[in-house]
Amino acid sequence: MLIQLKEDISAQQKSGIVEKITGAGLHIKEVKTQLNSYLVCIGDEELDIRAIGNMEGVGDIHHVTDNYKLVSRKWKVKDTRIDLGDDVVISREEFAIMAGPCAIEGEDQIRNTVDHLVKNNIRIMRGGVFKPRSSPYSFRGVGIEGLKIFSKICREQGIKVITEVMHVGQIDDMLDHVDIFQVGARNSQNFNLLDALGSVDKPVLLKRGMSGTIDELLYSAEYVFSGGNEKIILCERGIRTHEKAYRNTLDLNAVPILKDKTHLPVIVDPSHGLGLRRYIEPMGLAAVMAGADGVITEVHEHPEKALSDGQQTLNFIEAEQYYKHLRETWKLKISLK
Amino acid sequence: MLIQLKEDISAQQKSGIVEKITGAGLHIKEVKTQLNSYLVCIGDEELDIRAIGNMEGVGDIHHVTDNYKLVSRKWKVKDTRIDLGDDVVISREEFAIMAGPCAIEGEDQIRNTVDHLVKNNIRIMRGGVFKPRSSPYSFRGVGIEGLKIFSKICREQGIKVITEVMHVGQIDDMLDHVDIFQVGARNSQNFNLLDALGSVDKPVLLKRGMSGTIDELLYSAEYVFSGGNEKIILCERGIRTHEKAYRNTLDLNAVPILKDKTHLPVIVDPSHGLGLRRYIEPMGLAAVMAGADGVITEVHEHPEKALSDGQQTLNFIEAEQYYKHLRETWKLKISLK
Amino acid sequence: MLIQLKEDISAQQKSGIVEKITGAGLHIKEVKTQLNSYLVCIGDEELDIRAIGNMEGVGDIHHVTDNYKLVSRKWKVKDTRIDLGDDVVISREEFAIMAGPCAIEGEDQIRNTVDHLVKNNIRIMRGGVFKPRSSPYSFRGVGIEGLKIFSKICREQGIKVITEVMHVGQIDDMLDHVDIFQVGARNSQNFNLLDALGSVDKPVLLKRGMSGTIDELLYSAEYVFSGGNEKIILCERGIRTHEKAYRNTLDLNAVPILKDKTHLPVIVDPSHGLGLRRYIEPMGLAAVMAGADGVITEVHEHPEKALSDGQQTLNFIEAEQYYKHLRETWKLKISLK
Amino acid sequence: MLIQLKEDISAQQKSGIVEKITGAGLHIKEVKTQLNSYLVCIGDEELDIRAIGNMEGVGDIHHVTDNYKLVSRKWKVKDTRIDLGDDVVISREEFAIMAGPCAIEGEDQIRNTVDHLVKNNIRIMRGGVFKPRSSPYSFRGVGIEGLKIFSKICREQGIKVITEVMHVGQIDDMLDHVDIFQVGARNSQNFNLLDALGSVDKPVLLKRGMSGTIDELLYSAEYVFSGGNEKIILCERGIRTHEKAYRNTLDLNAVPILKDKTHLPVIVDPSHGLGLRRYIEPMGLAAVMAGADGVITEVHEHPEKALSDGQQTLNFIEAEQYYKHLRETWKLKISLK
Repeated sequence: MLIQLKEDISAQQKSGIVEKITGAGLHIKEVKTQLNSYLVCIGDEELDIRAIGNMEGVGDIHHVTDNYKLVSRKWKVKDTRIDLGDDVVISREEFAIMAGPCAIEGEDQIRNTVDHLVKNNIRIMRGGVFKPRSSPYSFRGVGIEGLKIFSKICREQGIKVITEVMHVGQIDDMLDHVDIFQVGARNSQNFNLLDALGSVDKPVLLKRGMSGTIDELLYSAEYVFSGGNEKIILCERGIRTHEKAYRNTLDLNAVPILKDKTHLPVIVDPSHGLGLRRYIEPMGLAAVMAGADGVITEVHEHPEKALSDGQQTLNFIEAEQYYKHLRETWKLKISLK
Repeated sequence: MLIQLKEDISAQQKSGIVEKITGAGLHIKEVKTQLNSYLVCIGDEELDIRAIGNMEGVGDIHHVTDNYKLVSRKWKVKDTRIDLGDDVVISREEFAIMAGPCAIEGEDQIRNTVDHLVKNNIRIMRGGVFKPRSSPYSFRGVGIEGLKIFSKICREQGIKVITEVMHVGQIDDMLDHVDIFQVGARNSQNFNLLDALGSVDKPVLLKRGMSGTIDELLYSAEYVFSGGNEKIILCERGIRTHEKAYRNTLDLNAVPILKDKTHLPVIVDPSHGLGLRRYIEPMGLAAVMAGADGVITEVHEHPEKALSDGQQTLNFIEAEQYYKHLRETWKLKISLK
Repeated sequence: MLIQLKEDISAQQKSGIVEKITGAGLHIKEVKTQLNSYLVCIGDEELDIRAIGNMEGVGDIHHVTDNYKLVSRKWKVKDTRIDLGDDVVISREEFAIMAGPCAIEGEDQIRNTVDHLVKNNIRIMRGGVFKPRSSPYSFRGVGIEGLKIFSKICREQGIKVITEVMHVGQIDDMLDHVDIFQVGARNSQNFNLLDALGSVDKPVLLKRGMSGTIDELLYSAEYVFSGGNEKIILCERGIRTHEKAYRNTLDLNAVPILKDKTHLPVIVDPSHGLGLRRYIEPMGLAAVMAGADGVITEVHEHPEKALSDGQQTLNFIEAEQYYKHLRETWKLKISLK
Repeated sequence: MLIQLKEDISAQQKSGIVEKITGAGLHIKEVKTQLNSYLVCIGDEELDIRAIGNMEGVGDIHHVTDNYKLVSRKWKVKDTRIDLGDDVVISREEFAIMAGPCAIEGEDQIRNTVDHLVKNNIRIMRGGVFKPRSSPYSFRGVGIEGLKIFSKICREQGIKVITEVMHVGQIDDMLDHVDIFQVGARNSQNFNLLDALGSVDKPVLLKRGMSGTIDELLYSAEYVFSGGNEKIILCERGIRTHEKAYRNTLDLNAVPILKDKTHLPVIVDPSHGLGLRRYIEPMGLAAVMAGADGVITEVHEHPEKALSDGQQTLNFIEAEQYYKHLRETWKLKISLK
């Protein structure tokens, strides 16, 4: 059961509600986000939902049969809209394109990419400054100082920044310089990180784990939401299977299923899926028709010189056609609804 | 190495070529299909390809580095076009829609479905008469007599028939009543069946195995082709993964990869992928943008009464919108190329 | 529900039982094997099991909640014992070792291997004469004539023959020359083949499919049993997973689970699991402790010269130590029970 | 290339070596562990390994072709022996049994378990105080205060403590109260945590990720080692596959492969593999024969009352027999070598 509290609820009203519910044997987790206050009620006891719905201070009340509650479509039918400011919005009404290099390399690279994005009316730039790498001897990114430059150049041009956060200790330093915190596939069940991102008022993009289930992705989102942050974007990026013809199996099936199960926006990363540049466009366009709200794609002025992931990165010319085709496909998609 | 022989090659010319190649330590498999004659040369020996290319009787010669040869895009760049007669064609220039029930149940069901297809300008009807079932106690289909009725009704209306063949012993009886032999996922490496379908002059649709790789699907196609039958259609229908939110992971990644690797048409089965009706349309449309040449979909007048797979079957009203949307998406797709 | 009929049941008694059951809305499949007669009753209707149990002609009656019936441990608690004659038995009381080359190559190879087996008191020789190969251009085995020689030499020395059957059309020719029909992983859901092997009075060894589930393996066994053949051996041989450090993931978990679910013997193939010789012994010994009733292993006098699978084949010296260690481990295993 | 430095190497000698290597175009990572000093040399350049080997201050030098270096068996053939003090050792010469509840619940539970372990001569107790849970609403463990009690009671009886650390921020508080830090499957690629555990002088047990490869597990160990901590234990605990008959596929294949690739001890967790109590013993015994150096198993006085994972936990009576059988199997295993 999920109770949305009224903004002006009194302490006395709230304790009355809490008492009634715990009296019936349920546990309560109080959740206060940037936008709302909730009581998440956990347990099997049957309660007269209408009786509680009629209590003073209750805004709305829902019986949510899913084990995740706050992220469920069962209580919030309307799609969540995430406003990044400056007219940059991730929502069902627009199609979000995030693009940029795998790893931030330096000022020139950032400026070139920003110019390319501005020219193509892309408002969100991706780029890793902390890179999770299987081997401890690989390049691990330019770090926080690189992020400051990345962020500064983007802000001059009205571009929003999405970059990966790898552990709790980085959040504070990054906070002023990012617009979206990205949680990578390897951290998709790093519950301490998810908890900590719950207390931050910046959107969080959660990638599905390498062998993560759709339900686990929703539970991870529930961690962030129940920690206090409603601004969550989900991202399908490919799962591990027996097939060896490509790097990961980009699982577009997850897109319409997630759109059914949750009110959160869902985007797709066609670069990390197959791991090959030539398949980015067909899979990106397929993602649109599957129902994605956006894509995140690796682009680089000279992919062949990129410090990482060049083989799955579009150059600027390829990318321009790709954006154009994405937008035409999106136009068709919304006309079919 | 693959040699396409001229139609008017003399026996003497051929034996000269064979001698030269086997003399160099290569093995030869002679392949004679409905359309052409080939020598498939297997082995590691280096040969002067031009010297052989200049011999009398050689139509064309190619060095094919793939382990599959005849189905490889490396020697035949042009997409294969499969003509079913009566202006029904499976090719890159059109978008093939195959639709019909999981299992043929009886005459009324066939007539209703045919009427529905004719109305929607669908030219190929699917419907199983031999059903592979995990349990020996499940309904196994109406059999050959049902196929005869199925075929008769379809032919009256200009509809082509695709149905599953399960073993070699069924081929002869089925031959006059099918337009496309379907090989199911469980038989995707039934090499005797594939061999036998090589000697039949009817198109064969090969479904990818449940944990089949993309390469294994191409090898299975090579069996049919090297057996003498060039008319092969490949079909992605979902693979087994750890995810339990749906039945199979429909692997749309396979579509652009297959289109790169082979000249054969590639279609998608969005019914068996997720196993749920509501996801057929988004995944079918996504398949179009991924580059599929067609789809095969389960439709039934009353899915709730179907003898099998009702939960993944569209009713006629849903199907009509689906066909319309597929065609609009296809129109966009070809305009982007 | 499963009814075992008395041997001397009269036609009238049987039709009385059938009438009672079908009258209650259940479907019946009559099964007559080499050893017994059964009525398998399928359906949800509730019946007074005791009332039927008291009818004349009923030997035994069981409520079996599994969807597979005849192979279930729920009605037959005692382990099935398969007698191959000449004191060669596959059962819970002994540990069966089957060994031999991947492919039969010729008379010398057979004689060498038989001598090796006799010396080590191994009574069952494996060796493929029909080889399922991904590529149509690979060596497909010496065929039926090779089987005849294989069988003749083995019989001179009291060795039993296990070899793979690939399709229904081969059964009759093979029948006199094999002691166990092996069904390979690729044919594990070739239902026509399973059906046909049900009407043969020779044991059948069923390999689990490449992505087959434990339940599917049991269903496949149910096909053979309900076709009339009780003599079934199950074999775990590795499944496909994301891991690339070896060929297949030999799933020893399947062993104790199968031993719980079915009364049939379960053996393990540690050669096809990892696909590497050095891991055969540790995994073979592990299989014993996991509860396997036997192993099937590839051995060859000169693995480096074997026509196929040499890298996963033991030479005779390695094999001798392996057999010895298997037997010592088995001795410990039964002492722990 | 991996260089082990002499303990008494002078600064000048070291800089001479470094200069020579970097001069040849290689990168160097200096590693100083509790026990030794190393130079890990990364890059493709060819170097005269003997010339460097002859330089003053070089203890040993190896060409390591694996991408992981310090954990590779290629430079250190001898098995690593981890001494926990008080005669508790994890090594190839003994068989380590770690046992205890999934989650620490309270003082009585700890005392009961410790008594049980002492009685059975088990020297290492497991028990989670920080529990990673898919859902934010599940019990997350008794935390650091619980760990202090857990540790105090164990130390009174000479029992060593292994417990899971979930993020960098917990390490300092836990340090004085644990004997082995456990890194769970969900954190197997939490590189910041691995880095941080490199600077701690306490053994670290690394569980394989849910879809982690064997190589990734070795890379994760390389993080800890190159961070400065040589005391690493690897643990197989089951991977995700398509099979639904059990929770995870315990991959015993990983055991002999890991023992080949690395000098680190390898243990197996048969509780989390299948997730069912009755399969712990057969899979634990199988693990011994596969070559494991130990097992970690969930035991609880009353599994049916355990706060988590009761269904995969042995009670004390079952556990006693299990320990006895493990030890008998181990005795056989070492006698076979």
